[in-house]
Amino acid sequence: MSTGPNEFDLIARYFTRPAPSGFLGVGDDCALLKLAPGYNLATSTDLLIEGRHFFSDVDPKALGHKALAVNISDLASMGAQPLACLLSLSLPDVKADWLKAFSDGFYALAERAHCPLLGGDTTRSTGGVIINVTVMGQVKPGQALLRTGAKVGDDIWVTGTLGAADIALRLLQGRLPANNDLLKACRAALEWPEPPWAFGKALAGIAHAALDISDGLAQDLGHILKASACGAELDYPALPLHPALHGMDADLVQEAALAGGDVYQLCFTASPDRSIRIQELADRAQCRVSRIGQIVAEPGLRIRGADGVLIEPSFIGFDHFS
Amino acid sequence: MSTGPNEFDLIARYFTRPAPSGFLGVGDDCALLKLAPGYNLATSTDLLIEGRHFFSDVDPKALGHKALAVNISDLASMGAQPLACLLSLSLPDVKADWLKAFSDGFYALAERAHCPLLGGDTTRSTGGVIINVTVMGQVKPGQALLRTGAKVGDDIWVTGTLGAADIALRLLQGRLPANNDLLKACRAALEWPEPPWAFGKALAGIAHAALDISDGLAQDLGHILKASACGAELDYPALPLHPALHGMDADLVQEAALAGGDVYQLCFTASPDRSIRIQELADRAQCRVSRIGQIVAEPGLRIRGADGVLIEPSFIGFDHFS
Repeated sequence: MSTGPNEFDLIARYFTRPAPSGFLGVGDDCALLKLAPGYNLATSTDLLIEGRHFFSDVDPKALGHKALAVNISDLASMGAQPLACLLSLSLPDVKADWLKAFSDGFYALAERAHCPLLGGDTTRSTGGVIINVTVMGQVKPGQALLRTGAKVGDDIWVTGTLGAADIALRLLQGRLPANNDLLKACRAALEWPEPPWAFGKALAGIAHAALDISDGLAQDLGHILKASACGAELDYPALPLHPALHGMDADLVQEAALAGGDVYQLCFTASPDRSIRIQELADRAQCRVSRIGQIVAEPGLRIRGADGVLIEPSFIGFDHFS
Repeated sequence: MSTGPNEFDLIARYFTRPAPSGFLGVGDDCALLKLAPGYNLATSTDLLIEGRHFFSDVDPKALGHKALAVNISDLASMGAQPLACLLSLSLPDVKADWLKAFSDGFYALAERAHCPLLGGDTTRSTGGVIINVTVMGQVKPGQALLRTGAKVGDDIWVTGTLGAADIALRLLQGRLPANNDLLKACRAALEWPEPPWAFGKALAGIAHAALDISDGLAQDLGHILKASACGAELDYPALPLHPALHGMDADLVQEAALAGGDVYQLCFTASPDRSIRIQELADRAQCRVSRIGQIVAEPGLRIRGADGVLIEPSFIGFDHFS
């Protein structure tokens, strides 16, 4: 029921880089930070557990990156600008190499995304590694990209590409035959996701609804449809498949693209008259965007092939969405 | 590497009470909240692990209460007013009774402290119960109670009483002979801590430095002394011992009062000319306060007995502070 002096040694060695001016970081009961005048706070938290959310032998640098990335993705999904983060870390034992790599991966993204680590909690765990990250960001009142905001007639967009994280996961779990070239091509999508925080922030006040594709496009778009009380038609050939998926079995590709999770990219909806502006903002943020369908009044999710005919994906659970 | 539909069922059933007006709660990528104009954000996070921070057979209602209480204590320690919280919860299995009791304990305190639960993350764990709570509060710029703020000549104060949580922990761990009456008298201090959030907020701009006594008075006051580059003299007879400790072995009482952790009460310092005001604010918040010593220039922590003679506590580790 106590943490012992190791806790403090750990914090001091790896997690006390100085806070930016105007912030109070590690070393007091709370972190302190300032929002821009008139902005609201957006905040989210994610718990990652060894063996459940990541493999025990994952590269700790990639793990540090991803632990923060999945949270920054939630800010991007709200159109919020990252401000700061907190990290809770529980380890079964103290390995300096592991901590150095983990903190390097974490801090590198925190610095690029202007999301400084201001505090947290470290403790020794009785089991595996446990990570909880909380992010805070700011967004103007009324401009947050809510799931409830989609309107009939909206275009549906996604950022980045689809399917590679799912293929990498299947390969690492042995659910696909070993294929080193394919794993090499897909692995970064799983382990080094790059959520589009600059573009997400730029969409505030422009897009109508947004979320990230952490549970797969069909399921996550389904959340928007349910919250906004509408339906969607997707144009399957418009989906931005990851290049490594070309030539693979069509059913597998369909499942990876539509049901594959761990995609820390945005799915968002916006009025068609915003499409030029959206493309400009994406270009400025060096973010790939693809228009993949429309919001319609009829509930449910329908997917059309190249010939305009409805596709019935064969993977388990798809019927739940349509 | 996925959470499955159970996650959503869990959230929906036990953790989606409506957010207050002006807040966005559970159900989107982020929670949204508003700070009062001109205030800064104070935030803290705590990770609690079964078997390390709480017993497996703890009353889940008390656990829900305490998981939030230890975080609200961090806000009180900064002089920040609670605004909202996030909860990450990982469970090895889903037991409706357990979840109902846990959420009842959590929400009851959240409501009393005006600290609504706005979001979080739930997942199935491979080991025991894992809880991470993040709290957010607000404090005026320059009024936060930092560890660096103590000044030579300040009075040192504590809220509440000392020692009972430590005695309860010793009894539960079998480090003291079983004594049901004593356990009954001390257990609430350990399992149902009541951090003085209203009084903590009232101290913003009045006290100089503050923290909670989660690691024990000597160690935590030591953090203030180190951060503020000063020393302290405590008047041992002025320590507000919990009534259940009267008549117990003097060395044990000393150790429980000075080294016993898990005390979610404040230790703070303030100019002596604020003492009447502090007593008034404490009365208004129905919070017991005791003046227990002074901040001095000479580094280190010294403790004087009734006769003014220095006490040398015999418990292990005390020499580290003096």
